[in-house]
Amino acid sequence: MNRIINLKESMYKRRTNAFLILNLRNIYYLTGFSGSSGWLVVSNRGDFFFTDFRYKEQSLREVNRDVEIVICKGDCIKFIAEFLNNIGIKKLSIEDCVSYKTYNRLSKSFALRPVNDIVEQIRTIKDNEELVNIRQAVTRAEDAFREIKGWIKEGITEASLARRLDDAIRTTGSKNPAFDTIVASGINAALPHATPSQKQMQSGDLVVIDWGAESNGYFSDMTRAFLINGSNIEKKIEIYNIVLSANIAAISSISINALIKTIDKTARDIIKHAGYGEYFGHGTGHGVGLDIHEKPTVSQYSKHIKVTHGMVFTVEPGIYLPNVGGVRIEDMVLIRGDSIETLTSLNKELEIK
Amino acid sequence: MNRIINLKESMYKRRTNAFLILNLRNIYYLTGFSGSSGWLVVSNRGDFFFTDFRYKEQSLREVNRDVEIVICKGDCIKFIAEFLNNIGIKKLSIEDCVSYKTYNRLSKSFALRPVNDIVEQIRTIKDNEELVNIRQAVTRAEDAFREIKGWIKEGITEASLARRLDDAIRTTGSKNPAFDTIVASGINAALPHATPSQKQMQSGDLVVIDWGAESNGYFSDMTRAFLINGSNIEKKIEIYNIVLSANIAAISSISINALIKTIDKTARDIIKHAGYGEYFGHGTGHGVGLDIHEKPTVSQYSKHIKVTHGMVFTVEPGIYLPNVGGVRIEDMVLIRGDSIETLTSLNKELEIK
Repeated sequence: MNRIINLKESMYKRRTNAFLILNLRNIYYLTGFSGSSGWLVVSNRGDFFFTDFRYKEQSLREVNRDVEIVICKGDCIKFIAEFLNNIGIKKLSIEDCVSYKTYNRLSKSFALRPVNDIVEQIRTIKDNEELVNIRQAVTRAEDAFREIKGWIKEGITEASLARRLDDAIRTTGSKNPAFDTIVASGINAALPHATPSQKQMQSGDLVVIDWGAESNGYFSDMTRAFLINGSNIEKKIEIYNIVLSANIAAISSISINALIKTIDKTARDIIKHAGYGEYFGHGTGHGVGLDIHEKPTVSQYSKHIKVTHGMVFTVEPGIYLPNVGGVRIEDMVLIRGDSIETLTSLNKELEIK
Repeated sequence: MNRIINLKESMYKRRTNAFLILNLRNIYYLTGFSGSSGWLVVSNRGDFFFTDFRYKEQSLREVNRDVEIVICKGDCIKFIAEFLNNIGIKKLSIEDCVSYKTYNRLSKSFALRPVNDIVEQIRTIKDNEELVNIRQAVTRAEDAFREIKGWIKEGITEASLARRLDDAIRTTGSKNPAFDTIVASGINAALPHATPSQKQMQSGDLVVIDWGAESNGYFSDMTRAFLINGSNIEKKIEIYNIVLSANIAAISSISINALIKTIDKTARDIIKHAGYGEYFGHGTGHGVGLDIHEKPTVSQYSKHIKVTHGMVFTVEPGIYLPNVGGVRIEDMVLIRGDSIETLTSLNKELEIK
């Protein structure tokens, strides 16, 4: 499989002969195994997938054939250490997300070298099979949203709208919503991570809805904001349109091989110049794939990262005014050579309900 | 709050003056914070909850008042290290589930001492507030099951039954199912961790359903098995009744202060003497609370652990015959002084559908 070959190239550059992968998303990416207990070793002595007896059948069905499946007997960590020592592996690179506890146990059998984000780095560039699933996850999220959009109106509670959206997401074939769906209205919309409450949508409320769907483990992530008609809504319309400008300008500013932080700067400058800089407290976006938040980070702190063919990330500027409300508009974009494709297709012009 | 006082007693016994807790379930248990980013320090210099700006409002609402809330500026790990150094903390115990990466960073500011399962140990003894939620989670799971029980019949797919059960669980008020609901029929029932498939239930199939619900973060976990009427079902009836005997005998064998491994032995001996010992490949049970699987482990390897007032755990013997099917019957029990209460109330005598 190409993905393991890519990993071996990364390992070669780092002079690593044996690498233990523990992150289950990385293991799924590299082998296809979707269960909840497994360890992968990629090495010049062979590639091995270790799991326990519960996942024997599933690993036979899922794990790609170039990788040898080994069923652990007894304590898995101990078993793996002995197995690898027996085939002559004494030096082992290991993902630094490993727990101290496991690190400490393995350090008795190997010269360990903790390494950072090797597979995550490869995962920033999506291949065609991944893009099929990401597009499917976007379609599912959008289809579900269209189903429930008519319910955005005065009187409905945040929790009830969220429940309808979650049900619609599952009906599209998505195993579950991609994350805890956010429906935040009125002053709750000023909290970027609000939990849907029993609050009813009221006249004049801004409503922020942030949701996503899934396809074969791949996620989508999008946000739309709406305004419930009412009095004194001028300021809310103003911040909506500033955020919309920031979103559109940031997407327009994306160009292949440019520094990714310039996307953040474009969005941030627009919001800053409009006088709301201090109310945009988060980064402009993040990669999306097998994790909802993955590399690349689209922020002012993304120092040397360049926009690269195959990347998929969000563009999601926002303004959050305490005790007033908030707006965030989040699209997913895909970099395809010179062209920048916006995967999200839902309307983002202000709709007053 | 009593829970932090209990923790301080544990810390005192281990001569620990400052303890950094990273496990979010442990943080929820100790403080009430339910968000996804936070760190808790319990120390003789004060108790501090650290989070980032996104969770400011939520932490003010949720975190108990004896703990001081601190909003990190910039990189949280760096901020916390400086904060603690500034108030004179130089030695720090830390949960050994910490990632190597974080451990390594903090080791530059502290003499670190990784510790194992301190809070998890306290969590094995449930207090009254926890029991209210666990009982609620059991009631929700049972109510949901009664709603869909009529659908267990020839022709329905595993996935469709699982979807109905999941929907019913959400309708009870449970935020989500406690875990990925298992519906496994026919030869799939021989896999303890099967994923619901498009397979239809057929005449003569054993059907294993393993599900749970939630209440304020606390879970329930239960399994029932059914038989679809058909020919050649004698062996299936036989293994059902062996597992049922093992379940009943294991629950009857529970007594306060006895070694917990005797419960496993009771169940295992019955299955072994019936000739199916090799087809019962997992432990007899596990604690349930804020985690679906938590301490105590009910297995032959649970060396010195005693049945203690306040424990909640499952009793779930099973037999899995490759290419035939399987049975698991799982109840939750609560230890209340001398009395053993079975929380699960659903019928467990064989029902042939």
